[in-house]
Amino acid sequence: MNQDYEAVMKLLLDAVRSSSDSDCRDGSDMIPVGVSNRHVHLSQKDLDALFGFGYQLTPTRDLSQPGQYACRETVTLCGPKGAVEKVRVLGPVRLKTQVEVLAGDGFKLGIRAPVRLSGDLQGTPGLTLVGPKGSVQMEEGVIAAQRHIHMTPQDALRYGVSDGQVVQVEIREPRGGVFHHVAIRVTQESVLEYHLDIEEANGMSVDASTKIKLVK
Amino acid sequence: MNQDYEAVMKLLLDAVRSSSDSDCRDGSDMIPVGVSNRHVHLSQKDLDALFGFGYQLTPTRDLSQPGQYACRETVTLCGPKGAVEKVRVLGPVRLKTQVEVLAGDGFKLGIRAPVRLSGDLQGTPGLTLVGPKGSVQMEEGVIAAQRHIHMTPQDALRYGVSDGQVVQVEIREPRGGVFHHVAIRVTQESVLEYHLDIEEANGMSVDASTKIKLVK
Repeated sequence: MNQDYEAVMKLLLDAVRSSSDSDCRDGSDMIPVGVSNRHVHLSQKDLDALFGFGYQLTPTRDLSQPGQYACRETVTLCGPKGAVEKVRVLGPVRLKTQVEVLAGDGFKLGIRAPVRLSGDLQGTPGLTLVGPKGSVQMEEGVIAAQRHIHMTPQDALRYGVSDGQVVQVEIREPRGGVFHHVAIRVTQESVLEYHLDIEEANGMSVDASTKIKLVK
Repeated sequence: MNQDYEAVMKLLLDAVRSSSDSDCRDGSDMIPVGVSNRHVHLSQKDLDALFGFGYQLTPTRDLSQPGQYACRETVTLCGPKGAVEKVRVLGPVRLKTQVEVLAGDGFKLGIRAPVRLSGDLQGTPGLTLVGPKGSVQMEEGVIAAQRHIHMTPQDALRYGVSDGQVVQVEIREPRGGVFHHVAIRVTQESVLEYHLDIEEANGMSVDASTKIKLVK
């Protein structure tokens, strides 16, 4: 009887484990969603020029990725055709200033921001940034962020994907669909989250409560 | 020899015809794209209230669908949380006022505009419209337009779809993907065009030059 009991338990446990494994492998378990508005990352040199020498950013809210935070500070973006005001600065300061705009901002500013991953700035256009103490003419650094999923190496193993891989994300909403060209970004310090901008999110009825499905 | 020639010509012509047929059936031939910004259709009663009794709209540009045009007139949308200014009025006047907003406008205005086809207004929220001569408190009529493809019965036959059918549209761009829940709208007077709003377009790198693929 004990043997039968153990055999049945083993069968049940195997079945449960295999079912949860397959859920995970096909990406159907929940990946949290983070929706970004336009924002700016500043170098200390540009922060000095915009807000005054030796200025320190004022954090107001932690972001989901460890060590990243929204700041009280905002700047104005000025392009050849127009301006976008009150653009949030995110901290901490970076080696190089980077501006992430919405595609719609590009039309207003009069620039064509290419779709790039954060940090991949070569050949991108610049803008004039204006702060309370001065302005900065960027040589380059304006992008429309490529949608991406942050994850740890453990998450990557779980989903069967690797850093730099491009996957698809399916949205099952009344205005849903499939986003192609979603980059996987793996670092030990990441928190699992699908990042897209507010235009991409609005066009597919995505918000922080949306369940997404990773499709390979 | 003449017979051989005719036989070869027939084979060639059949091959060309069948290849172009199959291109069409799988929807891979070009469907033009129309990107809409937020806009308002007014009833004559509301036009009178906003612009003065007996007012006539001033057409400035024909739209792709026959008889439809953009007007010089704009109104302000006011919701419980905020306002959106300079919203274009489209003509001609309709039996019932209808406001088509972007999802992002909904956040600014403080209303939740449901995704609906034009004319399907029951149970939708209202807004206050403000014009140069007065304002109107709408009971209902604010929607986020469901993406759709206008076509004639001949187009529908060609694509193998019917009025009211819901299809998918694939976008092959660097920021592309697949839009689900695209409605087919068939009328004799339609001009073939895929309609989506500016947020949907921006989120998938779609503009008037984009080639789309209809997927059933």
